[in-house]
Amino acid sequence: MLWHDGALHEGGMLTLAAGDRGLLLADGLFETVLIVGGRPWRLMEHLTRLRNSADAIGMPIDTRPEEAILALAAHAAASADLGGLGAVRVTVTRGAGPRGLRLPPNPSPCVFATIAPWQPVMAFRPLRLQLAAIRRNEFSPLSRMKSLSYLDNILALEDAVRQGCDDALLLNTRGTVAATSAGNVFALRADLLVTPPIEDGVLPGITRQVVLAAAAGIGLSVREQSLTIAELKAADAAFATNSLRLICPIASLDGEEISRDTRLVTLMEALRAEIHADCGADPFAEPSRASQFL
Amino acid sequence: MLWHDGALHEGGMLTLAAGDRGLLLADGLFETVLIVGGRPWRLMEHLTRLRNSADAIGMPIDTRPEEAILALAAHAAASADLGGLGAVRVTVTRGAGPRGLRLPPNPSPCVFATIAPWQPVMAFRPLRLQLAAIRRNEFSPLSRMKSLSYLDNILALEDAVRQGCDDALLLNTRGTVAATSAGNVFALRADLLVTPPIEDGVLPGITRQVVLAAAAGIGLSVREQSLTIAELKAADAAFATNSLRLICPIASLDGEEISRDTRLVTLMEALRAEIHADCGADPFAEPSRASQFL
Repeated sequence: MLWHDGALHEGGMLTLAAGDRGLLLADGLFETVLIVGGRPWRLMEHLTRLRNSADAIGMPIDTRPEEAILALAAHAAASADLGGLGAVRVTVTRGAGPRGLRLPPNPSPCVFATIAPWQPVMAFRPLRLQLAAIRRNEFSPLSRMKSLSYLDNILALEDAVRQGCDDALLLNTRGTVAATSAGNVFALRADLLVTPPIEDGVLPGITRQVVLAAAAGIGLSVREQSLTIAELKAADAAFATNSLRLICPIASLDGEEISRDTRLVTLMEALRAEIHADCGADPFAEPSRASQFL
Repeated sequence: MLWHDGALHEGGMLTLAAGDRGLLLADGLFETVLIVGGRPWRLMEHLTRLRNSADAIGMPIDTRPEEAILALAAHAAASADLGGLGAVRVTVTRGAGPRGLRLPPNPSPCVFATIAPWQPVMAFRPLRLQLAAIRRNEFSPLSRMKSLSYLDNILALEDAVRQGCDDALLLNTRGTVAATSAGNVFALRADLLVTPPIEDGVLPGITRQVVLAAAAGIGLSVREQSLTIAELKAADAAFATNSLRLICPIASLDGEEISRDTRLVTLMEALRAEIHADCGADPFAEPSRASQFL
């Protein structure tokens, strides 16, 4: 299902300007939002991040992203197939412009969104990571945004999968940990939970922020500081987060096993309760599911 | 004028899959080709680079890019408005895929192309450069391709223009010279012409290659080696190249003037002759134009 120009459309085809800068130059942003119980999880945080990034790249933004997410969430609520669950992606491009890189004087952004099925089984899955040769560029403001530029991440992920892993671990150009192909990275050592700061080339993840708060709530110290591979490998537990997979334990890095710790399950349960509170439904309530992933 | 699905279309609107990975993830490539006398300049070199990059990112490629460029070149030849001149941009995306970063098992790339007017006045113009804060990521294979990821370049260019300059100079993460927002960089010192090697985060430019050959032809030594800002500032002359602006003398960097050298005019004349030989026409033949820019 596609939202475009204020309405839902079936069929999956989109008509836009051949000069659309999102299509030609990756001049745009997106958000991926989890829908549970027909309601978007942490909607305001996603919209705020989108607006902050749009401001940073000088792209005007209006209420269409919110409208699109809410329309698709309502669709998920009404759909027997989706059962109130879904993954909404809303994309905002700077719209059409004349040839070349210069910004159009009066940009007219293009907004569209789609929903894909989401199942609880997609969350809380352990990851075997491979260290990527490609590095994340902390000298670029895009390293701190969900811009459309994902080909580096795609190539790193594909290389990891070819090597029998589930995802890639990307360092920044200074050689400290930045992110997986689509997630933030955390390491737990004793009572300290560490995740790299935004300046290290890190997306300010919504789930990252929720986890930092939840960790403080269960008595952990939390610190945003640069993380080395050695520190990650020596952790009591390490994990990756994003808005659809939530908390994924890092099982190994380059084949070397990383410890697990029951406090990860406590964090997972805290996140589950947080989603329940925000969306009014618990997709992990069915006992067979909860026992499988938690 | 738009080429899509084997035919020319007026109106400038394009219909593609809402799940097109070029649009959603910058998963695609492009080429920008100069049309002179209704013929594409250095067509084979552009197609070879496109194919090499497609191979590197695992994207299948067919004859549509060539077909599109030739159709639009023929359109330029027949158009009184364009007068046989134009700038063709052909875009190849990996096509639609399911949600997420993983490559679709059987990608069906999307190819489309447009033509914009091109005038000789766009070439051979001097540039005042501003050193960009954003750096080019030589750890990414995309630094050596014309992928769709141009937002870094857009932001660097816009910042330079805001400061009263014409373009940005981007260093790589090691701090040596990489490129302007859309061009290769050269420095001439005594009889040595230097340009950064591809490994420094540099696009293997078509004009770059032509200029390296032309420089050897007029008795200069040419060397691909890392270039520092100090070396650029101390050069007898420096310039940027691309397929539409050809050779642009670098007049200044951060307000500091850079020398000029009459051998730049010799290189410009060599490039002009090369275009004449390849395309059978000389857009700079009109004396008023030649004297203005050469």
